[in-house]
Amino acid sequence: MSITVVGSVAYDSIETPAGRKDRCLGGAATYFSLAASFFTDVRVIAVVGEDFGPEQESVFDARKIDTRGIERAPGKSFFWEGSYLENLNEAKTHNTELNVFASFQPKIPDAYRDSEFLFLANIDPVLQRRVREALPDVKLVAGDTMNFWIKDHRPALLEVLKGLDLLLINDTEARMLAGDNNLVRAARAVMALGPRALVIKHGEYGASLFHGAVDGVGSRTFKAPALPLDEVVDPTGAGDSFAGGFFGYLASQPQLTPAAFRRAMFYGSTLGSFAVERFGTERLQQLSRNEIDDRFNVFRELTHLD
Amino acid sequence: MSITVVGSVAYDSIETPAGRKDRCLGGAATYFSLAASFFTDVRVIAVVGEDFGPEQESVFDARKIDTRGIERAPGKSFFWEGSYLENLNEAKTHNTELNVFASFQPKIPDAYRDSEFLFLANIDPVLQRRVREALPDVKLVAGDTMNFWIKDHRPALLEVLKGLDLLLINDTEARMLAGDNNLVRAARAVMALGPRALVIKHGEYGASLFHGAVDGVGSRTFKAPALPLDEVVDPTGAGDSFAGGFFGYLASQPQLTPAAFRRAMFYGSTLGSFAVERFGTERLQQLSRNEIDDRFNVFRELTHLD
Repeated sequence: MSITVVGSVAYDSIETPAGRKDRCLGGAATYFSLAASFFTDVRVIAVVGEDFGPEQESVFDARKIDTRGIERAPGKSFFWEGSYLENLNEAKTHNTELNVFASFQPKIPDAYRDSEFLFLANIDPVLQRRVREALPDVKLVAGDTMNFWIKDHRPALLEVLKGLDLLLINDTEARMLAGDNNLVRAARAVMALGPRALVIKHGEYGASLFHGAVDGVGSRTFKAPALPLDEVVDPTGAGDSFAGGFFGYLASQPQLTPAAFRRAMFYGSTLGSFAVERFGTERLQQLSRNEIDDRFNVFRELTHLD
Repeated sequence: MSITVVGSVAYDSIETPAGRKDRCLGGAATYFSLAASFFTDVRVIAVVGEDFGPEQESVFDARKIDTRGIERAPGKSFFWEGSYLENLNEAKTHNTELNVFASFQPKIPDAYRDSEFLFLANIDPVLQRRVREALPDVKLVAGDTMNFWIKDHRPALLEVLKGLDLLLINDTEARMLAGDNNLVRAARAVMALGPRALVIKHGEYGASLFHGAVDGVGSRTFKAPALPLDEVVDPTGAGDSFAGGFFGYLASQPQLTPAAFRRAMFYGSTLGSFAVERFGTERLQQLSRNEIDDRFNVFRELTHLD
């Protein structure tokens, strides 16, 4: 089943202990759609500027991602500059230029209207809600958000959460959204705001899935590890790649059973582990489905007793 | 096979968000031996003061732990006072009184000399080494240490590491010992100092086992989760209880296969998860083997795909 994703397509200038790259193709919708494209058809809604050319377009084409919903606007694409020199788990932002994103009004191509799955990547919750309402017939809606929206745009975000089946956020965001440092209590509080399922990403420590009633010792929880890596070249996009692998795998399944959710967690971790091996989306561009399945088995060996 | 453990038997005054308890029975050797006693025979080497009476003695007796190596010295037992009010992952020490521990000279009862397993809990590496050398015939030696010894007693600690088969430390200690923030590289560096296997404990994020050559993606690594808990009453002793469950299970196995190590990781996490449910060693004192095996299965469901 096909996924429509709305989010940013951007240029990133990134510095990490492994080096520096200027103006990599990035943005949450880019990482997400590349990761999800290994499992199912993906359609993107975004806006780019005049600096988005055939070279960038070909990255999506090579993965057969539908870009008819990527609007070309006069001006420059969204640009972000950041570094991870002191801490690979948290980016330090040096510069953010919204550019054409500042006046983004998502437009949904008619050809996207039969999408069964919708992913609302991390953008203004007002826009997330608008896209959600424009696609009322989707079967499963998942979303992401970030500290900025949680802190300063809470009422709009709460409206989005009411309409989500699934939310994917990190530890800090879950604690901030719930106002509770204990992650199990935070998960329960976040799910009371709407999402029936919640994925909390722990960076180098993997991710937890909470689903159904979160009541008591370990109930309705599943843990996927992160891969032990002796070098993280660039952590940018790891969370969006996790989301793409997770949601892409779910969309490829005939039934959304608990077992499908568990495997989706491992595919999410798998795609996240590839994303950080090179700068920007380089590794996802070179990836094959065979490599993905081989690494899925590495994750199994990493966690399974027998 | 039986385990000899050398370490502290102490009184702790602890404050956490769940409340406060004064002068709980504590100490690394106490937590370790209670946890390990569910799997095998345990013999303790420690020193206590005149304030250690029949009530404390009975805690060990109830678990059939051999206390003939616990020396009674004139004066008071080791005392620690700390709190976890801001951060459950890191204790804030308010007071440490070494008391009889200041002049501790471990004495090994003859009855302990046929122990096959030795655990050197977190004490002065000079004493760890002395005990190690006094028991040259043990089959497997494991140890723990802490930031204080890593930072200020490095030469003595390096001598201990040379004689260890297995080291159990936490993230911060591994990074500090290796001088590398990347945990995989840190693991490799620590193992180059002696231990053939290394367990790195990640607190609420579980633990990683590194064994054999740590070379490449995920090789020779195993991950055990921590249990998602909606209340941690008292984190004191969680790491020592992990070590006791881990090493106790290993000592109970006919062969130290990779599968036995993987199960030992889960038993370590299981014992750690019980320890934090009540203050001090209260929960370990009340525990049954059936409860342990039930929770072992919860850990399996938490991480296994099928």
